[in-house]
Amino acid sequence: MTAQEGFAVDPWSITEHRLDLAGLARSESVFALSNGHIGLRANLDEGEPHGLPGTYLNGVFELRPLPYPEGGYGYPESGQSVINVTNGKLVRLLVDDEPFDLRYGELRGHRRSLDFREGVLRREAEWTSPAGRTIKIRSARLVSLTQRAIAAVDYEVEAVDGPVRIVVQSELVANEQLPVGGEGDPRAAAVLEAPLVAEAHHAHGTKATLVHHTRYSNLRLAAAMDHVIEGPDGVSVTSEARHDQARISATTVLRPGERLRMTKFIGYGWSATRSLPAVRDQVEAAITAARYSGWDGLLAEQKEYLEQFWSASDIEIDGDVELQQAVRFALFHVVQAAARSEERAIPAKGLTGPGYDGHSFWDTETFVLPVLTYCLPGAVAQALRWRHSTLPLARERAAQLGLAGAVFPWRTIRGEECSGYWPAGTAAFHIGADIAMAAARYVRATGDVEFERSYGLELLVETARMWRSLGHHDAVGQFRIEGVTGPDEYSAIADNNVFTNLMAQTNLRAAADAVTRHQREAAALGVDTEETAAWRDAAKAMYIPYDEKLGVHPQADGFTLHQAWDFEGTPREKYPLLLHFPYFDLYRKQVVKQADLVLAMQIRGDAFTAEQKARNFAYYERLTVRDSSLSACTQAVMAAEVGQLDLAYDYMAEAALMDLHDLGGNTRDGLHMASLAGACIALVAGFGGMRDYGEVIGFRPRLPAGLVRLAFSMRVRHHLLRVDITHDETTYTLVEGDKVRVQHETEQVVVAVGAPVSRPTVTPPPVERATQPPGREPARRKPHAVSIGGSPVTGGEHLAAE
Amino acid sequence: MTAQEGFAVDPWSITEHRLDLAGLARSESVFALSNGHIGLRANLDEGEPHGLPGTYLNGVFELRPLPYPEGGYGYPESGQSVINVTNGKLVRLLVDDEPFDLRYGELRGHRRSLDFREGVLRREAEWTSPAGRTIKIRSARLVSLTQRAIAAVDYEVEAVDGPVRIVVQSELVANEQLPVGGEGDPRAAAVLEAPLVAEAHHAHGTKATLVHHTRYSNLRLAAAMDHVIEGPDGVSVTSEARHDQARISATTVLRPGERLRMTKFIGYGWSATRSLPAVRDQVEAAITAARYSGWDGLLAEQKEYLEQFWSASDIEIDGDVELQQAVRFALFHVVQAAARSEERAIPAKGLTGPGYDGHSFWDTETFVLPVLTYCLPGAVAQALRWRHSTLPLARERAAQLGLAGAVFPWRTIRGEECSGYWPAGTAAFHIGADIAMAAARYVRATGDVEFERSYGLELLVETARMWRSLGHHDAVGQFRIEGVTGPDEYSAIADNNVFTNLMAQTNLRAAADAVTRHQREAAALGVDTEETAAWRDAAKAMYIPYDEKLGVHPQADGFTLHQAWDFEGTPREKYPLLLHFPYFDLYRKQVVKQADLVLAMQIRGDAFTAEQKARNFAYYERLTVRDSSLSACTQAVMAAEVGQLDLAYDYMAEAALMDLHDLGGNTRDGLHMASLAGACIALVAGFGGMRDYGEVIGFRPRLPAGLVRLAFSMRVRHHLLRVDITHDETTYTLVEGDKVRVQHETEQVVVAVGAPVSRPTVTPPPVERATQPPGREPARRKPHAVSIGGSPVTGGEHLAAE
Repeated sequence: MTAQEGFAVDPWSITEHRLDLAGLARSESVFALSNGHIGLRANLDEGEPHGLPGTYLNGVFELRPLPYPEGGYGYPESGQSVINVTNGKLVRLLVDDEPFDLRYGELRGHRRSLDFREGVLRREAEWTSPAGRTIKIRSARLVSLTQRAIAAVDYEVEAVDGPVRIVVQSELVANEQLPVGGEGDPRAAAVLEAPLVAEAHHAHGTKATLVHHTRYSNLRLAAAMDHVIEGPDGVSVTSEARHDQARISATTVLRPGERLRMTKFIGYGWSATRSLPAVRDQVEAAITAARYSGWDGLLAEQKEYLEQFWSASDIEIDGDVELQQAVRFALFHVVQAAARSEERAIPAKGLTGPGYDGHSFWDTETFVLPVLTYCLPGAVAQALRWRHSTLPLARERAAQLGLAGAVFPWRTIRGEECSGYWPAGTAAFHIGADIAMAAARYVRATGDVEFERSYGLELLVETARMWRSLGHHDAVGQFRIEGVTGPDEYSAIADNNVFTNLMAQTNLRAAADAVTRHQREAAALGVDTEETAAWRDAAKAMYIPYDEKLGVHPQADGFTLHQAWDFEGTPREKYPLLLHFPYFDLYRKQVVKQADLVLAMQIRGDAFTAEQKARNFAYYERLTVRDSSLSACTQAVMAAEVGQLDLAYDYMAEAALMDLHDLGGNTRDGLHMASLAGACIALVAGFGGMRDYGEVIGFRPRLPAGLVRLAFSMRVRHHLLRVDITHDETTYTLVEGDKVRVQHETEQVVVAVGAPVSRPTVTPPPVERATQPPGREPARRKPHAVSIGGSPVTGGEHLAAE
Repeated sequence: MTAQEGFAVDPWSITEHRLDLAGLARSESVFALSNGHIGLRANLDEGEPHGLPGTYLNGVFELRPLPYPEGGYGYPESGQSVINVTNGKLVRLLVDDEPFDLRYGELRGHRRSLDFREGVLRREAEWTSPAGRTIKIRSARLVSLTQRAIAAVDYEVEAVDGPVRIVVQSELVANEQLPVGGEGDPRAAAVLEAPLVAEAHHAHGTKATLVHHTRYSNLRLAAAMDHVIEGPDGVSVTSEARHDQARISATTVLRPGERLRMTKFIGYGWSATRSLPAVRDQVEAAITAARYSGWDGLLAEQKEYLEQFWSASDIEIDGDVELQQAVRFALFHVVQAAARSEERAIPAKGLTGPGYDGHSFWDTETFVLPVLTYCLPGAVAQALRWRHSTLPLARERAAQLGLAGAVFPWRTIRGEECSGYWPAGTAAFHIGADIAMAAARYVRATGDVEFERSYGLELLVETARMWRSLGHHDAVGQFRIEGVTGPDEYSAIADNNVFTNLMAQTNLRAAADAVTRHQREAAALGVDTEETAAWRDAAKAMYIPYDEKLGVHPQADGFTLHQAWDFEGTPREKYPLLLHFPYFDLYRKQVVKQADLVLAMQIRGDAFTAEQKARNFAYYERLTVRDSSLSACTQAVMAAEVGQLDLAYDYMAEAALMDLHDLGGNTRDGLHMASLAGACIALVAGFGGMRDYGEVIGFRPRLPAGLVRLAFSMRVRHHLLRVDITHDETTYTLVEGDKVRVQHETEQVVVAVGAPVSRPTVTPPPVERATQPPGREPARRKPHAVSIGGSPVTGGEHLAAE
C-alpha cells in the first residue's frame, strides 16, 4: 500500500479492497490482532507472501549481547529482543497440485476487514490458479479477549469451477525464516534467527502440540492446536509432528459450490519456571476449553466484550468520519494491547510488530495508561503491578548507579535496563515519575485503595527516594536535578529540565501524601516522618528555570541561550534529523524532537499561568520538528488550551492517522501505541479540555470549526460519565453511579443520574496561529474533502517519525 | 616487578638487577626502544617468557569494526588498531639440547640497563641449564636514531663450564601468538590475531626477508635481517624461510671461556602504495647500509646523536637524584617517540606498547610538542606536517558534522575518527585548537616562516573556520560555544567550557594574525578580510563564564552549581572513578578527572588575574582526583605559580614517576608519553616559571625547598639559552646565538653570548597548602629518603590512572 492509498473510511471498521504486495508489512501491523498476551500480525493465512511474519507472546524474548566500542561502568551487557514464536495461524492450501500463492495465478478478488465491534479479522479472496482452477476463500481470525491463551481461525475454501482436489494444511511452525531486516536505521529491531530449541512434539487426530525453549533467556513455551473440520463426505485427515513443525492435513475433492471448512483453535502458554508437562498441559487444556466454546461461542464472547467496552468508552465525532474511524481504530488497538497483558509490560508497539525490539518505554505510563485509566482501569492496575514486580531489579539498578530507591529501565521487556545509549536511556530518569504518576492517577480516578496500599505506595516511595538522592540543594536552598534527559531526545544530559523537575515534584508530594494515608505499610518500607519531610522540602524547593528576558521557560538550564537550529537551511529530506545530523549538533542547539516543556504544561498545567502557557507554546512551536510520534497529541492538547483550535485539530489528526497513513514510514514494524492513545488524549484532554489534577475532574471544552460534535464516556470515581460537546453547549450525563462533582470551566457542578447538566461551550477569541519550522507544519485538516468508501484521503503530507 | 620495588636510582641510566616474571610487561615498556618509526618492546632476546610481545611500525595498523548497540549518525564504523608486526629482535639459544628459557634451570645473574646517553639496552645473564651447564649471555640492542629503518642486536654467548654445543637462531617471526588481554577495562587495547598475510619470503646466507600485508587496511610491510657471526673455528651457518618465519642459525661447540657473537641488523619498511619489490628492496638496502656502518658504527652514531641532544636539552636537578633520573628517563623516551616519526602521528604511548590501540590524542599537541618545541623542534614540524596531511579527512569529517573548516579526530592512527563514544570523543572539539596552538607555538619559538606559510597557516585557518561555525553570538552579542567536552573527562557536553573557549579565542586570533603575515597564501585558501574580521570579532566577544558569588571560574556554564562529589564516602579502591561509577553520575557532579580550568590557567595565564588563579586553583584542587595521567604536571605548574611550591614538587614527582613507579597500574600497555613530557613541563614551566605567550619568553623561577638547583637548556628563537636556578639567584646564559631578550619576573633583560645575566630568585610568601579530595592527595615528596643504588623508593602510594 503506497502513501497515496488509504484504507476505506468507515466509522466502525477498517477495510482493504486490494492487496498491495509492497505494503504487506504495513497492513500486517494495521490488521494485527492481540489480547495483550498473544499477538498475531496479519500475515496471510497461507504464510506467504509476507512482509514480516510475526507471532508474539508478551514476555517471551531472547537475550542478545550489547557490544560497545568503548565500554563504561553500568552499561547493560545484555539486551532483550522480542522473538517470533511458534506460528499457529498458518493454514496452507493446495489447489489440485498448485500451492495457493497470490503471487502466481490471478487474484480476482481480495478484501480484508476488521470490525472494531466484532474483533475479528475477516478475509475474502477469489483466486484462479496458474492451471486455471478458480476457488473462493473465506477466513476469519481472532485472538480471544475472553480466553487469554486462545486464538482461532475459521477457514473455508469453496470450489467455483470444475471438481478440484483440495489439501488444507493447518500448521504450527517454529523458527520461521525471517526476512533480513534493517539498513542501519537504529530504530529497526534486531532480527534473531532460530531462537527456539525443540523440547517436545506431538500430533494425534486433529490435535498437535510443540514445546520449545529459548536458548539464552531459558523460557519454555508451548503451542497447541485442535480442529473442527466440515466438508463433503470423504474428507481425509492426517496428522504429523516433528521438532519445529506440526501439521494437520484435510484432503478432499470439492465440486463447484462445495466447501471445506476448518476451524482451528490455537493455544499458547509460556513460563520461566514451570515444567514441560505443566506448560504443555496448560495449552492443551486451553484448546480443549476453546473447542468447547466453539467458533461461534468465541465470536459471541468477543463481541460481548467489545460491546461492553464501546458502550462505556466510545469517543464519537460528528463532522469528520475519517477521524471517527481513526480514533476507534486507536482505541481498539490500545484495548488489544492492554486487555489481557496481566502483569506483563505493554510494549511501545503492543504485540503488533518487532519494532523497538518489543521494548516498553515511558510512553506506556505517559500516553497509554492515562487513556486506559478512564476506560479499562483494570488493565492499568495490571500494567502497574508488572512495574511493581520489577522493583527488585529497579532497586538493584539504583544501587549500581549510586542512587537510593528504584531506577526503572528506559527500555525493557522483563525489567532489566536494555538501553545501549545512556544519554537517551539511563539519563531519562523521568520514567520513574512517569510510573509514579500513572499509579497516583489510577488511584485518584478509581479510588482503588487496596491497589495503592499493596502496589502504588511502594512505587511512589521508591521513586521519591530516587529523586531525593538524584537531586541536591544549592547554596540558596533550591533543589536542583542535574545531568538528566527529558522527553525531548534532541537534548540530553541537561540541568533542571522543567518537565523532569515538575514531575519529580509531583512524585515527591504524591509519595508523601500516600505515606500519610498508609502509615503502617509505609513504616514497613522504612519510611519515617523525617524522610517524608525531606521529600516535601525538596518538592517545595524544586528549582524551575525561567528566562525572564524572553518571558518563557527554558526546557532546561541554558536552553534558550543556545543557537537556534538552522531550519531554513534544512531541506525536507533531512528529516527525521537524527538520521542525518549527529547528536552533538542536535543536543547543543534549540531544536526539539518532541513535546517536552509543552508536555510539562499539559501534565502540570497548575505550574504555569495562562500567559506563560501561551508564550511557551508559541516559543516551542517554532522549534519542534515532531521527529517523534509522541509529540503531535501533546501539541494538540496545548494548542487547544491556548485557543488555537484549528492547529489543535491538525495535530489531533496527525496523531490519529500516524499508522493509518503511515506518517512515520515505519508502521511496518508495528503500530505506535502511544500515538494511538495520544489521539484519544488529544480529543478528550484537548477538545474536551479534561484535566484531572486534583479532587474534582475538570473540563474546558473547545470545539474546532471542523467538528460538529464530540462526545465521550469515561469512568470517573466509580461513575460512568458522558460528556457531549457541541459548539453551543456541553452536556454532562451520569450513565452509571449516583452523582459526581465535575468542574466546567471555573464552575463546579453536580451531575446526578437522570439529571444531566448543560453549560454553554466557550468559543475562545481568535488568536494568531503559531508557526512551526518550515516544512514541519502539520497538514491542514480539511475534513469535508474526505468521502466515505475508500477514496484517497489527504492529510499525510508531513512525515514524522520516532 | 612489584609496586614495592623500583629500578636502581642513577642520574643517567635505568637498571634492573633481577627479573620479576610477574612484572615483565612493565619492564618491557620501561626499557622499550624506539626512534619514532620502529618500536621494540624490551622483550627478552629469546622471546619467552614475555609479558606482551611488541614490535611496532609507526602508521601500521589494522582496521576493525566498531559495533554499537544503538547506532547514530556520524558514528565511525571502523576503528584502527596498532598491530604487532614482524618480530625481528628474536635470538633464540639452544644450550646442548635445552632451549635457553629463564623459567627453567637457574638464572644466576640478570641485569638490564639503559643508558640515556648511549641509547642501547644492555643485558647480562648467567644461567645454568636444567642439565647443569652454565653459560653467560651479553646482549645489546638498539633502534637507530640515525638510520631510521634500522634496529640491531649484538648477541654474545660464552661457555662457563665444560664444552657446550650452542645453536643461536636469529629469526623474523610474523603473526606471533599474543596473550589474551583485557578484562573489561575499556583502556586496554584490543588484541588483533594474525593480522599479517604473507606475500614473499627469502633466505640466503646470513640474510633473510619477509614481506606481508595487512588484511583490511592493506598496508605492505617488509622486514629483513643480516648478520655478522664471530666465534671459534667451525661455526656452521644455515638459513631458511617460510611464510611467517625466517631463520639464520649458527652452530658451534664452545669450550669454557669461548664465545659466539652474532650481530644482527634488522631493517623495516612499509607502504600503503609501493609495490612488493619496492618495499623489499628498500629494507634490504637499509640493512646493507647498516652492515656497512657495522655495530660499532651504529653505536657511535647513536651516542653522538644523544650527546648532541643532551648538550642542548638536558634538565639538571640537584638535591633529588631520583627525580633527576626520572626526568632524563622522560626526556629520553619523548625523544625516542618523536625523533624519526616523520609525518606520522606520535601515539599516546609512543611505540612502547599497544595501549589506547596505538592512537594519537590531543595530548601529543598539548604536552609532548610543547617540550619538543624547545629541544627537538624539527620533530614538532614533522608531527604537525602529519596533522596537515590529514586535513582532507578532517575537512570531510567537518562536513559530515555540519561544520566549516576541519574537525580533527579525537583518536586516530591515520587520521580518521576512531572514537566510539562521542561525548568524550567528537565533542572534545578543543583538539582543533590544541593543534593550531602547537603550530603557532612552534612558529613563535623557531621563527620557521616557511613552515607557517606551507603548513601552519592552513591548520590555523581551517580550525578557525571550525570554531566560527561551532559557536554563535547570543542576544547580547557574546560568542558562545555549546555542547562540547573539555579536557576533564568527568564532565561532558557542557556549554562554554572555559578551556575550550579560551583556546578557541587564541586559535581565532592566531589564524587572523597568520593570515595577515601570509596574505597571498591565505587568499589561495579562500580567506578574505571579512572572514578574518569575523574571527577577530568572535575572539573578542568570546564568552567566559565567571561565578561572581564564589569568585571562581566555573569549568563550564553551571559547573559550580552542581552537586559536589561525595569524596568522603568514596573509598580508595573506588578509584579510578570511571571504573566504578557511571558516566551520568560523574558528569553531573563537581568532580574533575584531570586539570581543565587549571590547564586553561597555565596555557592562557594572560586571561586570569593572580587572585583568580589562586582562588581557582584552590577551588579545583578540592575537586580534582587525577584519574588521568594528564593532570599532575599541570597541577604542578599552577601550584608553583600560586606559590605552593611543596605541593608543586609533589605533583612534579608524581608526573615524573608515573611509569617508573607504575602509578597508573597500566605501564604494561606502554609508557604515558604525555605524563613524561609533562614532568619536563612541570620543571621548566613550574619551577622555571617559563611562559611563552608573547614576543618575549618569560621566567618566574620558584624553587621548592626539596631542590638545591635546577638548570635547563632550551632552544628559543634560534638561540640556545641556559637557565640556572638556585634558591638565591637565577642565571641566564646564552650558549649559542647572538643575544636574546628574556623576561625575569617583571623585568626584561638582554642576554648576550659571554654575558650571563643573574637575578635574584624570588621566594614567594608561604601560603596555605591547597587540599585535595581525601585519599587523593599526592604523595609527599621526601627526596632525602632516596638513596642511590637500587634501594626501595617511596613516593608511589597514590594511584592515578587514565
